[in-house]
Amino acid sequence: MPAPFPTPPFMHQALDLARAAGAAGEVPVGAVVVRAGAVIGQGENRNRRDNDPTAHAEIIAIRAAAAQLGDYRLVDCDLWVTLEPCAMCAGAIAHARIARVYYGAADPKGGGVDHGARVFAHPQCLHRPDVYGGIGEDAAAALLRGFFAARR
Amino acid sequence: MPAPFPTPPFMHQALDLARAAGAAGEVPVGAVVVRAGAVIGQGENRNRRDNDPTAHAEIIAIRAAAAQLGDYRLVDCDLWVTLEPCAMCAGAIAHARIARVYYGAADPKGGGVDHGARVFAHPQCLHRPDVYGGIGEDAAAALLRGFFAARR
Repeated sequence: MPAPFPTPPFMHQALDLARAAGAAGEVPVGAVVVRAGAVIGQGENRNRRDNDPTAHAEIIAIRAAAAQLGDYRLVDCDLWVTLEPCAMCAGAIAHARIARVYYGAADPKGGGVDHGARVFAHPQCLHRPDVYGGIGEDAAAALLRGFFAARR
Repeated sequence: MPAPFPTPPFMHQALDLARAAGAAGEVPVGAVVVRAGAVIGQGENRNRRDNDPTAHAEIIAIRAAAAQLGDYRLVDCDLWVTLEPCAMCAGAIAHARIARVYYGAADPKGGGVDHGARVFAHPQCLHRPDVYGGIGEDAAAALLRGFFAARR
């Protein structure tokens, strides 16, 4: 039996952020933006803490990276996120010109990349990143399941 | 010949914000969030000024309104925006639980409500606002045409 594909380090960092969000009572999702092998922005869900409906992990990581670069376009940057991005975050990814998106768990209910609005699939989408799903998905899905089970 | 339908005051306020954005070199779009007849958040495009790919008028207005209310859900709030929202902003509108969206000019190239991703049209969309397009669209479209003509 082959060894399982190891979870890449940037996804481990996103999973740590997801765990921190969950411990703070937020939906456990985390994200990092990477450029030239270095993290230049990170985020964890903060909707409730910040009273901000846009405060998803991806949005926070993208805003932090853009501030760091001093540019509203994140050319040559990758996003690692523990959950399939929603339509809002997929739109932000396209606006930011993110090159590659690596996500953990698929989100058939709330996702907007491979489900629902499929934001990158329309001719109107100005920029389509390469998308790789299922990276570290077992850990990401277990975090989410644990969070929602505890709330029921 | 009947008098043309007058542009409602909240759209005039959004158009003023759009003009300010255009004067600052940003795509001229403005938005206000209204609750109980009062503006509780406003925004104009600030992508370039703020180095922020998410800084669309709608996102800024929604974040301001949520901070004002101290709640990440904008229950019983309406959004007035001069241009059809993109997929990112439509996603934010759904997350914020905005009740009604009034927009000015349709955006066949970049819109995500009545074009492209049609974010509210999918079964996965958690909240669908009532949407009214074409409110003050002549003024909104003229602003955008003038802006892009000057850049060519």
